[in-house]
Amino acid sequence: MATTNVTTTNVRAFGANAADEALAAMSIQRREPTPHDVEIEIMYCGVCHSDLHTARNEWHGTVYPCVPGHEIVGKIVRVGDHVTRFKTGDLAAVGCMVDSCQECEQCKIGQEQYCEVGFTGTYNDPDLHQEGKRTFGGYSERIVVNEKFVLRVPENLELAAVAPLLCAGITTYSPLRHWNVGPGTKVGVVGIGGLGHMAIKLAHAMGAHVTVFTTSESKRADAMRLGADEVVLSSDADAMAKKAKSLNFILDAVSASHDINAYLQLLKLDGTLALVGAPEHPLPVAAFNLLLPRRNFSGSAIGSIAETQEMLDFCSKHGIVSDIELINIQQINEAYERLLKGDVRYRFVIDMKSIAGN
Amino acid sequence: MATTNVTTTNVRAFGANAADEALAAMSIQRREPTPHDVEIEIMYCGVCHSDLHTARNEWHGTVYPCVPGHEIVGKIVRVGDHVTRFKTGDLAAVGCMVDSCQECEQCKIGQEQYCEVGFTGTYNDPDLHQEGKRTFGGYSERIVVNEKFVLRVPENLELAAVAPLLCAGITTYSPLRHWNVGPGTKVGVVGIGGLGHMAIKLAHAMGAHVTVFTTSESKRADAMRLGADEVVLSSDADAMAKKAKSLNFILDAVSASHDINAYLQLLKLDGTLALVGAPEHPLPVAAFNLLLPRRNFSGSAIGSIAETQEMLDFCSKHGIVSDIELINIQQINEAYERLLKGDVRYRFVIDMKSIAGN
Repeated sequence: MATTNVTTTNVRAFGANAADEALAAMSIQRREPTPHDVEIEIMYCGVCHSDLHTARNEWHGTVYPCVPGHEIVGKIVRVGDHVTRFKTGDLAAVGCMVDSCQECEQCKIGQEQYCEVGFTGTYNDPDLHQEGKRTFGGYSERIVVNEKFVLRVPENLELAAVAPLLCAGITTYSPLRHWNVGPGTKVGVVGIGGLGHMAIKLAHAMGAHVTVFTTSESKRADAMRLGADEVVLSSDADAMAKKAKSLNFILDAVSASHDINAYLQLLKLDGTLALVGAPEHPLPVAAFNLLLPRRNFSGSAIGSIAETQEMLDFCSKHGIVSDIELINIQQINEAYERLLKGDVRYRFVIDMKSIAGN
Repeated sequence: MATTNVTTTNVRAFGANAADEALAAMSIQRREPTPHDVEIEIMYCGVCHSDLHTARNEWHGTVYPCVPGHEIVGKIVRVGDHVTRFKTGDLAAVGCMVDSCQECEQCKIGQEQYCEVGFTGTYNDPDLHQEGKRTFGGYSERIVVNEKFVLRVPENLELAAVAPLLCAGITTYSPLRHWNVGPGTKVGVVGIGGLGHMAIKLAHAMGAHVTVFTTSESKRADAMRLGADEVVLSSDADAMAKKAKSLNFILDAVSASHDINAYLQLLKLDGTLALVGAPEHPLPVAAFNLLLPRRNFSGSAIGSIAETQEMLDFCSKHGIVSDIELINIQQINEAYERLLKGDVRYRFVIDMKSIAGN
């Protein structure tokens, strides 16, 4: 699929030129839509912690210039000749992936997020359409994407608050569905941030009994408002002991090092703890916590395109969006600093109209 | 169920009087069979590594005197008035459990190995029938057990070699069944010892493709003889890399600390690595190995009574027994020393006739 000569146009973007530089306005090139592409005018883009990790090269793979952003909502402005699912004027969304090999076992079963050769991330991944180039994300005016990786956006939801569903939403929806959370399920959610707050809303809407675990008493009221049935302070040993062997499923959205054994012990027989955060350092697991009783320590990464659409439709039906704080693109560096302090309830979303000011 | 006054009789046994003393002949008391009990004359008892851990108080819970042994095969010599499943002269077997609460959620669904209050181990657990006493295991002439915890023994198998099925057999059979190993499944077995060698035989008989991972080139031929389709030296980085993302299920029978990440990487999407050994120190798990692709790190402890019977019947049908080395009870201390060096292929079994010599 990689081609050396593609026609491109310049679009305005915001990105990093080096790991230690603030994000700034820049011009990037987008390909002209090929027959299967759509061009989207970006209205809103959510700010994921991965954006910050990548912009600052904290995962050691960043190629500069780097334009982050993979929680994209916008409007179709052009469609390629063979595009069948979208037309000009449609609302559309793009999440963490813009391509995958389409040939491996996982792609064939519609699990392209687990593509054998790795899906093409929406930013900072080798661009299958422009050899030697990297993909640029949603902190920009427009994006061109193969329609297979584009989602339909429900008309009934607040568009800015839909943006975070494309990463935080699907990352929590997919494991909740995969492990059959529903009425009668006792679910734990660990950590209330961008991901955790979505997990609470979604698990509640699925009909589960939701217990939220937090280190911060100050988040108790918010957790209840988001849909929790109970809130447990993880520092309260008695309260934790009372929850031993009581949960069917735990969604663990904590990205920092933490004591995974304290949570494994809360699972019933055949319960699963699924990590959706990716702590930098290995998590020590005591074998007995997996043996007596039999339990699963698992993980999950985003979700498939089909499941992302299912999630958006589910959110439409249940009136679920993210709690957001809308910012202008010029505030992105300040937003990153606040993100580092956990000072956001619960997702920054960039109003991309603001980029016209640059 | 605990009663203070029960009639008891003395039986010959072999056990430890202290953590640092060799096992020696001793006399212990067994209760007279109550209406639901059977009394079994023990013919053979397998030697599990747990026996050694407990005799030497390596798990810090041993009460002395301690009589180990939970891989018991023998003959029914007496039955209580209400016993319906056995009669005098029947072959019978006892594994790791002799009682459980029978009232909790797990007991009610026939998963008494995961009993809420903990099953009563065949040795060194508080005896539900004799208050203040501990259970004594199979290194003895006779044992008295509630018929619910007694298994039928197939007539067509070599009895001495059946004994290890009661722990090593069920401990590997249960997870293989739970995670649906069968024709078309690609299974890995890590570690070839008492448990691992049974896992190879069982997975092969279930129709799976079996790859054995070992640190020891000297075990290659043996692994193939036991039923492996392939053998990979875990120190061979190239061979390990070739197996990346190729297995549906891994049974990990290693009790020592080892690099669990090296094996998690071998699993396909939704594959499971199940620990059946219980390494003393926590195993560090790199989050990304559970996320990309989605994988499960799990554990399993023995199996239910019903499943143990199913396993014995499966072994009968497929002609499967353990590879054993038959010893006299007087050789038990020497056998423990050899066990520590891994010098047994693959299970010591005590010929309990030898106890008459004491």
